[in-house]
Amino acid sequence: MDRAFQRTKIFTNHLLLQSSDPLSSLSSNACLSYSTPEDSESYVFDVKQMRNLIDGHDVEERDWLFGLMMRSDLFNPKVRGGKVFVSPDYTQSMEQQREMTMKRIEYLQDKGVFKGWLTEKEEDIVLRICAFLEVLSIFDHSIKIRVGVHFFLWGGAIKFLGTKHHHDKWLRASENFTVKGCFAMTELGHGSNVRGIETVTTYDTNTGEFVINTPCESAQKYWIGGAANHATHTVVFSQLHINGTNQGVHAFLVQIRDADGNICPNIRIADCGHKIGLNGVDNGRIWFDNVRVPRENLLNAVAYVSHDGQYISPIKNPDQRFAASMAPLRGGRLNVSVNAVYQSKVGLAIAIRYALTRRAFSLKQNEPEVLLLDYPSHQRRLFPLVAKAYAMSFAANYFKMLYRKRTPESNKTVHVVSSSFKATFTWNNMQILKVCREACGGQGLKTENRVGHLKAEFDVQSTFEGDNTILMQQVSKALLAEYVAVRKRNKGFTALGLGHMNKPRPVIPSQPTSTTLRCSEFQMDALCLRERDLLDHFVAEVSNCRARGASSEQAFNMCYQLGEDLSRAFSERAIFQTFVEAEATLPAGSLKDVLGSLRSLYALTCTEDASYLRYGYLSVDNGAGVRRGIAKMCSELRPHALALVTSFGIPDAFLSPLAFNWIDANSWSSVEA
Amino acid sequence: MDRAFQRTKIFTNHLLLQSSDPLSSLSSNACLSYSTPEDSESYVFDVKQMRNLIDGHDVEERDWLFGLMMRSDLFNPKVRGGKVFVSPDYTQSMEQQREMTMKRIEYLQDKGVFKGWLTEKEEDIVLRICAFLEVLSIFDHSIKIRVGVHFFLWGGAIKFLGTKHHHDKWLRASENFTVKGCFAMTELGHGSNVRGIETVTTYDTNTGEFVINTPCESAQKYWIGGAANHATHTVVFSQLHINGTNQGVHAFLVQIRDADGNICPNIRIADCGHKIGLNGVDNGRIWFDNVRVPRENLLNAVAYVSHDGQYISPIKNPDQRFAASMAPLRGGRLNVSVNAVYQSKVGLAIAIRYALTRRAFSLKQNEPEVLLLDYPSHQRRLFPLVAKAYAMSFAANYFKMLYRKRTPESNKTVHVVSSSFKATFTWNNMQILKVCREACGGQGLKTENRVGHLKAEFDVQSTFEGDNTILMQQVSKALLAEYVAVRKRNKGFTALGLGHMNKPRPVIPSQPTSTTLRCSEFQMDALCLRERDLLDHFVAEVSNCRARGASSEQAFNMCYQLGEDLSRAFSERAIFQTFVEAEATLPAGSLKDVLGSLRSLYALTCTEDASYLRYGYLSVDNGAGVRRGIAKMCSELRPHALALVTSFGIPDAFLSPLAFNWIDANSWSSVEA
Repeated sequence: MDRAFQRTKIFTNHLLLQSSDPLSSLSSNACLSYSTPEDSESYVFDVKQMRNLIDGHDVEERDWLFGLMMRSDLFNPKVRGGKVFVSPDYTQSMEQQREMTMKRIEYLQDKGVFKGWLTEKEEDIVLRICAFLEVLSIFDHSIKIRVGVHFFLWGGAIKFLGTKHHHDKWLRASENFTVKGCFAMTELGHGSNVRGIETVTTYDTNTGEFVINTPCESAQKYWIGGAANHATHTVVFSQLHINGTNQGVHAFLVQIRDADGNICPNIRIADCGHKIGLNGVDNGRIWFDNVRVPRENLLNAVAYVSHDGQYISPIKNPDQRFAASMAPLRGGRLNVSVNAVYQSKVGLAIAIRYALTRRAFSLKQNEPEVLLLDYPSHQRRLFPLVAKAYAMSFAANYFKMLYRKRTPESNKTVHVVSSSFKATFTWNNMQILKVCREACGGQGLKTENRVGHLKAEFDVQSTFEGDNTILMQQVSKALLAEYVAVRKRNKGFTALGLGHMNKPRPVIPSQPTSTTLRCSEFQMDALCLRERDLLDHFVAEVSNCRARGASSEQAFNMCYQLGEDLSRAFSERAIFQTFVEAEATLPAGSLKDVLGSLRSLYALTCTEDASYLRYGYLSVDNGAGVRRGIAKMCSELRPHALALVTSFGIPDAFLSPLAFNWIDANSWSSVEA
Repeated sequence: MDRAFQRTKIFTNHLLLQSSDPLSSLSSNACLSYSTPEDSESYVFDVKQMRNLIDGHDVEERDWLFGLMMRSDLFNPKVRGGKVFVSPDYTQSMEQQREMTMKRIEYLQDKGVFKGWLTEKEEDIVLRICAFLEVLSIFDHSIKIRVGVHFFLWGGAIKFLGTKHHHDKWLRASENFTVKGCFAMTELGHGSNVRGIETVTTYDTNTGEFVINTPCESAQKYWIGGAANHATHTVVFSQLHINGTNQGVHAFLVQIRDADGNICPNIRIADCGHKIGLNGVDNGRIWFDNVRVPRENLLNAVAYVSHDGQYISPIKNPDQRFAASMAPLRGGRLNVSVNAVYQSKVGLAIAIRYALTRRAFSLKQNEPEVLLLDYPSHQRRLFPLVAKAYAMSFAANYFKMLYRKRTPESNKTVHVVSSSFKATFTWNNMQILKVCREACGGQGLKTENRVGHLKAEFDVQSTFEGDNTILMQQVSKALLAEYVAVRKRNKGFTALGLGHMNKPRPVIPSQPTSTTLRCSEFQMDALCLRERDLLDHFVAEVSNCRARGASSEQAFNMCYQLGEDLSRAFSERAIFQTFVEAEATLPAGSLKDVLGSLRSLYALTCTEDASYLRYGYLSVDNGAGVRRGIAKMCSELRPHALALVTSFGIPDAFLSPLAFNWIDANSWSSVEA
């Protein structure tokens, strides 16, 4: 041992010069035991009432559907730590996951979940459909998407682009799943730029048929959910060439498989292959080899072709014809947005519950270790995101009502709100899941704990149903168009929540007190100030560019940074407004109080954004005040942490073992079981 | 058709009130064709020379290892679009992926890849080991981690914590894989807080054995890479109880499986289960049921126990003993950091190459669609990240040299740099992969295109080998300690790159010209100003808190926001410094010019951070100037885009089909093949 000892001495000399590596000052022997957060945390407001408020509608129906899933072995129940959890087995092969998705859908159909989805009056059923899709997506993204593609994209195309003849023939058959639909819009070479698609359809006057063709490899239909294995029919978007003139993109119905699942003649189908998420959806590719379909298979609400081959449309403007063909996407964006909110809730419920049961390090020697959620830095990581989830809930409810009650007059608002909320909610969701997974440490990486897996599963949301970046450009363009139109009319702003532009420019107090910081008028002023100023600024810059000879697209491209800041300013103000309106409906009391703190935390978090300092809306001192205000709100919300995530109304079985007794769930006895 | 027509009219009325949905103004028929970026882009600097500079060492050796992998069917070569790609089959089951990882390691061992890794003098071989691990991680994270655990953690524990006896017995056997090691430190209940682990070891004087025990479920060893299937031995970290005194955490060698793979008596092992990435590594859990090992199995460089049970350590301070036991982690952090840089390069090479071949939308009617990379907004998304990857490359090379030449005197620097760079690089990497995946649109989600998959694969890096948040806290604490020590000595700053604190506070010009903005002195001033001011600020706040009665841990917790800003400021300044030093070694010429642009872009991107405005280091006007400077650098770098990612030196086979002819790769003929 002499040599060992000598070496030890050398090491000692090293160490005396060296700081202690990391990690703690505790030396403890007592074994950890789990205690459920319900034992230590209390509820000062009614969590059921809060849930009713944020779910907004169909609460009992949601619970019925949760129950249906919990009661069937198809939803893969597993006992961990003495509790049952349902979640797909994501370790299955892609093929197995796809089959399970379809079996689950069949089961739900048998139980009547989809009854009326395509045949009842939309206004009466759309909220229930949304609620059910939200619940399905809490179980699994794939099942939600597979159902959504069938009903919202395929079904929506027939409803909105077809006419009575199509409705009669297809809607009930689709609702029954006699017909299984998919939606063939995107191609390998064209995604966001739908007008550039290369599939070509011509009309054969001799037979009265349309001839649909994939002229080259980049024209293959791509990412078509349902196409690879299960769909029997598709709606194909294609350029329509009539008498040598391209009439632009139109939608046609095509059968792609027979009832036995055999691929139809002149159709070729291939798989899109394994994806980082959504492997329970059979995304496929389709080639059309001069496929012939009868004339009535053109969805003809927008235009039709007469028997002798004349193209007839009451919409003379091709841009407007094109816009009309995109109608089915709007419902898709609604659902993508709202589902993103619910995924955030799943992540937050898991991360907050874990942080209420996991301890690390102690503040003084021989003291017990501290709960993660009692660290100010951990509160700062999670509570602004809880506030964001609440804000998005109110915004989602507003969006659903707007969609349900949409009229010709509100279509522009629906388009701008759907673009803004879809992009904002899905980006927020990815950010929230990222933080939640890191806040759960290594346990966030276990597939069964869900929070890490959800990131890959929902990543697609940022680029499908409209790439977020492009959707946000749409928002800034629409705001600019509105600005120009209003100035031309000289009548004041009314649309898109821009009424505040008619008032005097708000003034931010030079030294807002902490009372001011939590006042909704101050918060609204701060959000409106940024939006109006950026809009003025953006309009001026774009018109400068145009004056220097740029096309409007070039000008938008050159001013993209202002455009991005503006569209975020619009989105955050619009979301905030829905929060204020929801809060206003409540009587004074503990529920309203806690919502007030959440609303303040949401607003101050938005106001902490660099844009406030960059454009001088806040002084450096005010910025520091906002930051202090955020820390204060976080500590104020700490006692409500459990109640705030319990109010999300997600049954325990749909969270994960990490949210409950994770020591039992990992015990040796659970290995042997 | 009358009804149809009527409905169409109603639709028309809607549409006249509605903006066109999104997405483009092009109506094109010509089919897309792929042209390789090499045909249109040119190289104005020597990409080989650039690669030598950023790889820094062992370039030929890297290519040899790339070649070894490309030549073996074990690396799963697949032809797509006429090119061969190697990549693991991530659709395999967890068990299959684990077996493939081991088979690949055996093949590489046969080829002599690991020769000398544990038996040659560290200074002579450590850079080659780093290079090989970088190359392995470009193929697959699992193989790199499995090799890294065996050599850096198991092997490192024996080297750094063991003495000659252990070296003689274990190092060669480990290098040959006769012994397969793992590293049992983390437990279910304690990860970051290693001192809190609950495994207990006592010494039995009667038999001269240590008795290692898992006293409760939270003490089970957790996340132990290699434990679930393959490892024969482990180093166990455990509290050592001698004569009723807990001497703290010590490391012991334990055999866990016999040569036939049977689990040894009194050892229980379970799987950690499916993870969101790294499924080729068999992470497991271990319980020790009073396992007996001979006295010499204590790794005794830090302390030893005599035959009659006396605890003897020349290191009287338990904190320093503990720090010594953590030595093996340092090499781990080095490798995690550097691998993160190479993953960023894979993501960027794919996203940039794709953006040089994918078009979307046209700026004027009937013009061709525009390449993604010709949009200023797309440049702004990607080029600052390219600059970051270059900056991290230089910083990684500096870190490797620092590690290789480490001395007792430099240990503190190694600790702070390893904490700072590990956290910063891995967070940067996740951000870069996220942006790259979104920049690739839907194609970023296909597993075979790699960029999306890498996100899940490398997510673990943010929390393993030291949780990033805690590591960054270590940085701010170390800076504070240095500050206090220097002020006490009253001698000026020398360590941790803080020499600039001795100089007068830099002054940022009130209206920097664009020439100033690209001047490295200005950039360094801006980075140093932030660091020094935040350090002053942080020291003052912490000492305020302490004056009000807080413990030092409480004070750190209360000042966490300043601490976070400070540790980021330190990291970015330290990284920048390595960039400047690398640039300084070059003669004037095109290589130096382009690096100058990258360096400026990196510095300005750091300077655009909200902290510059928040603490008043930049005026609003200067902030706007910085922003304009960034846009300018991006357009300046556009012509070099291809050369910049080619210089990463990653063979085509290790990128993905999306980086090359993605139309061919998706053609029908490839489906039939």
